[in-house]
Parts: sequence; C-alpha cells; structure tokens
Amino acid sequence: MSAVDRPVITLLTDYGLDDDFVGICHGVIAGICPDARIIDISHGIARHDIRGGALMLRNAVPFMPAGVHVAIVDPDVGAERRAIALRLGDERLLVGPDNGLLTLAAEAGGGIVQAVDIARSRYRLEPVSATFHGRDIFTPVAAQLACGVPISEVGEPCDPAELVYLKLPGSRIEGDAVVVHAVHVDRFGNVQLDLGHEQLIASGLKLGQEVELAIGNDEVHLARYVRTFADVTPGQLLVYQDANQLLAVAVNHGSALERLGVVIDDELRITPA
Amino acid sequence: MSAVDRPVITLLTDYGLDDDFVGICHGVIAGICPDARIIDISHGIARHDIRGGALMLRNAVPFMPAGVHVAIVDPDVGAERRAIALRLGDERLLVGPDNGLLTLAAEAGGGIVQAVDIARSRYRLEPVSATFHGRDIFTPVAAQLACGVPISEVGEPCDPAELVYLKLPGSRIEGDAVVVHAVHVDRFGNVQLDLGHEQLIASGLKLGQEVELAIGNDEVHLARYVRTFADVTPGQLLVYQDANQLLAVAVNHGSALERLGVVIDDELRITPA
Amino acid sequence: MSAVDRPVITLLTDYGLDDDFVGICHGVIAGICPDARIIDISHGIARHDIRGGALMLRNAVPFMPAGVHVAIVDPDVGAERRAIALRLGDERLLVGPDNGLLTLAAEAGGGIVQAVDIARSRYRLEPVSATFHGRDIFTPVAAQLACGVPISEVGEPCDPAELVYLKLPGSRIEGDAVVVHAVHVDRFGNVQLDLGHEQLIASGLKLGQEVELAIGNDEVHLARYVRTFADVTPGQLLVYQDANQLLAVAVNHGSALERLGVVIDDELRITPA
Repeated sequence: MSAVDRPVITLLTDYGLDDDFVGICHGVIAGICPDARIIDISHGIARHDIRGGALMLRNAVPFMPAGVHVAIVDPDVGAERRAIALRLGDERLLVGPDNGLLTLAAEAGGGIVQAVDIARSRYRLEPVSATFHGRDIFTPVAAQLACGVPISEVGEPCDPAELVYLKLPGSRIEGDAVVVHAVHVDRFGNVQLDLGHEQLIASGLKLGQEVELAIGNDEVHLARYVRTFADVTPGQLLVYQDANQLLAVAVNHGSALERLGVVIDDELRITPA
Repeated sequence: MSAVDRPVITLLTDYGLDDDFVGICHGVIAGICPDARIIDISHGIARHDIRGGALMLRNAVPFMPAGVHVAIVDPDVGAERRAIALRLGDERLLVGPDNGLLTLAAEAGGGIVQAVDIARSRYRLEPVSATFHGRDIFTPVAAQLACGVPISEVGEPCDPAELVYLKLPGSRIEGDAVVVHAVHVDRFGNVQLDLGHEQLIASGLKLGQEVELAIGNDEVHLARYVRTFADVTPGQLLVYQDANQLLAVAVNHGSALERLGVVIDDELRITPA
Repeated sequence: MSAVDRPVITLLTDYGLDDDFVGICHGVIAGICPDARIIDISHGIARHDIRGGALMLRNAVPFMPAGVHVAIVDPDVGAERRAIALRLGDERLLVGPDNGLLTLAAEAGGGIVQAVDIARSRYRLEPVSATFHGRDIFTPVAAQLACGVPISEVGEPCDPAELVYLKLPGSRIEGDAVVVHAVHVDRFGNVQLDLGHEQLIASGLKLGQEVELAIGNDEVHLARYVRTFADVTPGQLLVYQDANQLLAVAVNHGSALERLGVVIDDELRITPA
C-alpha cells in the first residue's frame, strides 16, 4: 500500500491535550488500522460545547482528505443517547455521539445517505467503559471503517430523520440593519458571526464602509467593513469576511473579544454609520 | 515495509507543547528511524510530577501497539540518576529516567526482564547537553531500539533490583469505610482514587448506594455510587468506576475538583450514608 | 516509496492548538502530498512574536530531517508583505512570511541561495482568504515543494537582499561584565540569553564561579555558573549553557522567570561576585 492510498481518520474533541484521552484514541486506531493517517483537527473545543464542535467540524472537514471524521463532544456519555456512524452524499463518513455534533458537517457534505447506531457495535472494545466511548466505541469503529469494513456492518441501521439536529440562532436583515450572533471566538479574539457569504452580499454592506455595531441595547462601537486586518489602523475594529467566508469582527493587532466583551450567542446589530 | 509493520514509539512527558521540546524529539526520531510511527500519549504532565506520569503511563500503555514507550519527567536531569531502557515480560520496551517513572507500567507489563543503563549509550547525540536528555539520550536510543537494535547493545546491563521504584499511598478498608487517596485529576475535574477493581468489589459498595465522602476531619459530602455521570442529576456528586477501572469522584456536568477542593494525596473516607 | 524516502514538512506557528488552524494545515498538506511526514515543531509561539518564532526555528531546524520548513507568525497577513520560499546553502527549504521570521534559520543553514515570492503562486488554494495564508498559500506551496516541484516554479524570483531581516539586541563584554538580554523564556521559567558558545568562552566565566546578575539599575541577584540544575541546591539561581549552547538563567526546581521578574529584551549584567 502506497502512502497515497492510506486511509485518513480525523479527530475533533473536547478532550484537551493535558490528559491521555487523545493519545489513547491514537493508540487504539494504530492498533486496529496501522495504515491509517490520523489528523487532529483540534482537541480544544470548550468542555461540552456541542455547537462549537459542530461549527468547527463543518468548517474544517472540507479541507481534509476524504475519510472517516470522528467528533466527540459528549456531555451525556453513558446515558441513553445513540452513538452513530453516518455516510454522507459526498461519501465521507462521520462518527460520533447523536447530539447534533455531526449534523452541520453532514448537511455541508451532501446530507446523510446512511446512518447506523454503533452503541452496541461488534467492533467495540470490551469491556465498554461508561465514560470513555472515544476509546471504546468511536475510535475502534472508525478504525474498522477506515480499514474497509462497510458501514452497514458496524452497527444497526437507523432512520436519519430520528437523529438529533442542531439549530443555530440564525441571522436576519431588518431594514438597513443586519442582526447577527456571536457563534465562535478564536485564539486571536476574533469573533465569528452567523452570516454567510450569500447573505453578506444580500445585506448591501460595501467594502470600506463605516458601520455601527450595537450589542444589546446601549453599547455601540464604530467599525469599518474591510477585506483584512491591515486595512484599518492597529487598534481599530473591523468587520470582515473570515477564512470560512463568514462575517467576523476583529481588532487589528488586538482582540475583538476584549474590546466588545461579547459572549457566545450575544446578538449584534450592524448598521451603516 | 508495509505500514502494518511500522515500529511504534510512544512519548509521554512534562514538556508541554508551548516550547519546541516535543517537536525536536519527533525530529530526532524521524532522522534516525524514519519508519517509526510516533504516538504522543500526552505532554501535559505537571512539571516534575513523576507519579502523575507513572500513573498515566501505566494506564495508557495497554492501549498502545507494542513498541518502545518513552517517558520523560526528569527533575534531576544532568545529575547522577541513571537513564534506563527496560524490556518487560510482555516484550514492550520502556525508556526514561531511573526515578520511578517507568516502574508502575513495568509491573503492569509483566515486570522487568532486562534493564540497561543508557546514560553513556553509544547512540547518544553528541555533544550531550546537561539539560535536554529527551533530545540527546532518550529519543535517539528509543529510535535505535525501534529500528531493531537489541536492547543489550544500547547500554550497560544493570540490576533491576537496584532501580528506583515508586510507592503509591495505598488504599485500605476500615470497618465499613473505604480509605482512599486522590491520585490524579483530569481536565474535566474528575478525581481518580487509588482503589482498583478487585478492591472495589471487596469493599461491598453497591451500585445505586448513597455514600458519604469525608475529606480530612470535618468536611463531609453526599454522593451516589453509580455507573456513570448521567445516573445522577446535573450538579450532583457521584462515585464511579472510571475508564481505567479505578474508583473516581465526579460531578455530573461539573467539576469534582472544584466541589471538593482536594489536592493530590488527600485522604478520603467513603462510608455508607 | 519506502518510509525512508518520505518527504518531511515541519510546521512552526503562533496558531495555538485550541482552534482548527493547525489541523486544517495538516489536512491541506495530506491532500496535496499524502506521502509527507509532518512534524509540528511548536504552535505555542506567543501571538505575533516574530522574534520568538525566529529563534525557535533557528534552534530546532538542525534537529529536523532535511525538508520543507514552514513558519507562520504573521501579524500583517493580508497586507503587502511578501510571502516567500527560500532555498538555503544546506539545501533545506523554508516557507513563510517575509517579516524576518525565517532569516535567523536561513543564516544558520548556510544562507539564502534562492528566494521566490509565492504570494501569487499558481499553487495557492483559491479563493485565497485575506486572513489565513497558512491554509491558502504557505502549506499548499510547501506540500508541492515536498512532493518535488522545483522552487523556481512555485513563485516569482526575488532578490534575497531585499527581504526583511531580523536584528537581535546583541550581547557585549564590558571589562569584567557580560552584558546580555533575555530573549526567550521556556515552560519551565528558564530564561535564555543572547550569548553563544564562543562568546561565552571569550567571556572568561569559569564553571563553579559565583556571579552577580544585575537587572536594570538596582536589583542584584547572586547565582552560580555551573553545568546543570543539580549543581546547585533546590531554589538556587544558576547560570548555565543550555541545550542550544546559549547562556541561560534558571532556578533549580523553580522558575527564574518568577525569581527575576524579567521581561523579554531586559538587559542583564553578569559580573564575578
């Protein structure tokens, strides 16, 4: 087998890197499917932040080679939630808990063509612990899929319509205002909003335009809608289309998170200044 | 050589990921044994926490493919402590400083069959620094072992009985009380105790039972002994058998560390409520 | 292709590991050059700390197998700074922004033999975002180089003399005093100074000697110039030659950063006590 044909497994979790959770998942995969190339998308999702994980998975998967994409943010591990493997319209496979974590990526990948419940998969590691399904269910099943086991054999068929789907708050246009929500903040303090490329074009915002950002009822900040950080002076607020083609707010050489003091789900109104 | 036959080297250190220590170890291994697959168990051990590293190594190695398992938590680097490579009863190889870090994993892996002192190994990188033996001794020797050099050739034989062994505080049963110690806390604030599966059965604790947790002399907390987080309501304390089959304390959707305020080695008494 | 011949790409960035930036770069490389082995030198450079990145790159690259070495610390992403690929005297290839980040490593690797501007490379990912050139320019170009595309084909030739070069503060000897600067602090609180091996020998410092460390005008600390941590008692300050053969200050089983309260670029005077 040439490296060109190596199967790819990607991992995205809220496990962090201080413990051995991620390392153990790698070891389990390497034991079952030694040919697999493992790519860590990130393990820095905030604990139990299903939506943050779902958004990151949706944004990152298109840049991954096609393969088996495992995501684990699982506050209800050990309870009755399903564990699932999904085959998408674009033939990628997703593996993770049935709590909405996988559904934004599934939609972006052509929708769910086939779903199986893997909670009692024959490929689980025994004894299955009540608290570490990453080790005992998700990665062993993913490794079998990567090594060629058909999805129909790793679990029981289930109806995609019965899965848990995630709802995003949703942006809207009100007169000349764009009403959006903070959905993610990155390491640099850049705040991602829930307004995609097409909506952005529909909003009528023009490059170079000065805008007002209102958070809640009182606080108003001046910003400029530009292409990139360097288009404003250091310390100035900018609104821009980020690398995922979503609208975002940043401070050149600074932190929009600190400047605005927003928290996830805060509503922002953007109007011409 | 097919990927299936690739040698495996695992790494566990207190180097953290902010510096280039881990990256340099990867580079050294890739230069000596390009076929090796490297698995990072974790680099998040607290600085100089030999016991935390020893416990993690013992828990993680059974989930790794057999190979060369390097561990480095080395407060006395450059002093007279030995550097060692060990062959275990199960044929795994361990490499690291002789300060107890390797001995719990060695015991779990069938005991030490062969030990060599690698401090002056012919496979060291020259000049050997006084402070970065991960780069200059441990990983170059591990890479040679992974590529097939026999352990007898990487150092001088030494007597396993003369190595430094680690002592754990040790749990005990006093009447209807189980007396245990906090030995590890993970990212989620779950507190691992030093009570294994067999002792747990001997303790007479029954699933579903309510228990009292006493820390030190005064503080008493109510908890329930259950299978998993979801068996108690959010915010409630639970005692459970964790993924390593050790007794542990957690708060469903919360942090037992914050709730109890324990520190490592604190003694806890668990009694029926 | 045997693993022995696998091309190597190393990555060093200020992206951190909480977001998906690094994972996406891995995915892009794996998609273009599946044979590449990727080594993460570190992603823990402080945000926008070009010099910290440049020093780490210079120190780490000699321990990496020869390959394509990508570094990204890029406060002016999207502005008019060049994006460059460099071929060095030792045949290594460097890829990153033209802001000085690559130049210390280039000098240590035999100097720049060939330079190309890759900002408009035919191998960019389209559409190129204004803010994530790691994904859209640096790693796709690096992956093509790793897979054998000649450097002359990934961009437009540019004159090495016109690139941005980094200046270090520079140490000096004044009478019996060595005047140095804090240039880096590692996870353990060890403070690296800008005095290399040859200067150190010229300074006349002798192993075992007691010295005074003066920071700024008043504060003076006693330390000993020794080979390693264990040569002083726990809690004592030491001056030593670190694993990069640079002079450094540490506290045995403690933190020199906390003890001295230095910040990067602080001047220290070291004199015999």
